[in-house]
Amino acid sequence: KTHYETDIDSGNTNRLNTILEKVYYDVDTHPSESLDWFNVLIAQTIQQFREEAWQRDNIVHSLNDFLHSKSSEMPSYLDDIKITELDIGDDFPIFSNCKIQYSPNSNKKKLEAKIYIDLNDRLAFGIETKLLVNYPKPRTAVLPVNLTVAIVRFQACLTVSLTNAEDFVPTTKETASSQDDDGYFLMFSFGPEYKMDFDIESLIGARSKLQNIPKISSVIEYHIKKWFVERCVEPRFQCIRLPSMWPRSKNTREEKVDTDDVPLSKAE
Amino acid sequence: KTHYETDIDSGNTNRLNTILEKVYYDVDTHPSESLDWFNVLIAQTIQQFREEAWQRDNIVHSLNDFLHSKSSEMPSYLDDIKITELDIGDDFPIFSNCKIQYSPNSNKKKLEAKIYIDLNDRLAFGIETKLLVNYPKPRTAVLPVNLTVAIVRFQACLTVSLTNAEDFVPTTKETASSQDDDGYFLMFSFGPEYKMDFDIESLIGARSKLQNIPKISSVIEYHIKKWFVERCVEPRFQCIRLPSMWPRSKNTREEKVDTDDVPLSKAE
Repeated sequence: KTHYETDIDSGNTNRLNTILEKVYYDVDTHPSESLDWFNVLIAQTIQQFREEAWQRDNIVHSLNDFLHSKSSEMPSYLDDIKITELDIGDDFPIFSNCKIQYSPNSNKKKLEAKIYIDLNDRLAFGIETKLLVNYPKPRTAVLPVNLTVAIVRFQACLTVSLTNAEDFVPTTKETASSQDDDGYFLMFSFGPEYKMDFDIESLIGARSKLQNIPKISSVIEYHIKKWFVERCVEPRFQCIRLPSMWPRSKNTREEKVDTDDVPLSKAE
Repeated sequence: KTHYETDIDSGNTNRLNTILEKVYYDVDTHPSESLDWFNVLIAQTIQQFREEAWQRDNIVHSLNDFLHSKSSEMPSYLDDIKITELDIGDDFPIFSNCKIQYSPNSNKKKLEAKIYIDLNDRLAFGIETKLLVNYPKPRTAVLPVNLTVAIVRFQACLTVSLTNAEDFVPTTKETASSQDDDGYFLMFSFGPEYKMDFDIESLIGARSKLQNIPKISSVIEYHIKKWFVERCVEPRFQCIRLPSMWPRSKNTREEKVDTDDVPLSKAE
């Protein structure tokens, strides 16, 4: 290490210490904080989302279209997948125990919030597909399969930070081109010890013959976890550009004025 | 009120009660929560913003351009305004005492977070302009003016909610056209009892003759407060479209891998 680098390190550490002093936060002794208010706001938003989804009832169609477009990426022993059931849950995530820590591996140069998240809900989709035996020739045998895949528990440690810096690299070339250095970003990531519990049931062949097929269950579970890990489990993280919070005329709104004493919104 | 409307009202209230039960929040008894972790994240971001601003040193130029473009909207007794000084502060806002409440006038149909914010800092800009006496004819007399306008304290009660609903109307026609019904929004607003303390000094005419001119001070203070009130003081609020938090490949990043044991970021 050169003297120059050592000076910069201590400069960065001092700077964070100054910030922590000015906002009265001691990372060693500050107790973790609750986020009950945040849980309420998030729950209210999820509830609005669910009500819209129930009204429109078009999620199943959208997902079917999506799966159809991805059918070429499916393993060859699976036919097209059709969604037959969708449960968007009726509980809400609980965020808790928020603490500020130095980002691991940042050499005390960055601060991030560490938050526990626990979701105890049933998010399920039922699918219909066919298991294909492609040997000795394609579709030698075709077995109808009915599957219900449910995530019944999600627990993880979430880290969150805000930044305008770009001390990170895109994971694919595609992202590099769409990247823009300006603005502020919310970065979040889940710890690798996350828990994602599944409840997977399958009906194969004749309707009367109900049995679990561990192979299919594990393929599905593997793909969902792979999707998740590749995007937002450490060392990968999501980096979302934040909109400007600067007050602007075009973002200004007022409550609807109604002559009635009980204003009715569209949603009713 | 019709029976139908009464049913809807109680349905909405029950729905919020269910949400509050599921996230274990009782609006009547829940103590207010601290936001010290949030203060750290915000402070770190402001610090990054300040470091960038100090490095670039182009804020004064940008503001001068902006003021020049707005010169036609200035009162006729003021000449063009040129910014001579800019202080972006060195302290950080403190958010605290966060509590969930039913939105006033919402008939218990909406929940929002109420947060105290306190900023004890000096945000100053010094300007140079001329006071024009336009009677009996334009520019009968011209008095050079040097002003320093500083905001030294800001205290307010902030309300925040998340929504995908559109129970509100734009305040101008311009906003109506750019409005888009999809997506989720962060809504925020400051209570009308906000406190914004100014420290305004002026130097008029000969350099030796230092004196405060209450007229100019109050014009400036009036315009800043008007700008603020028109945008984000109740009943007006800011409605910011939130980006999707759904994990995507294009938003995935990794830490930079460096052969050195102390990775150096651009900012150093």
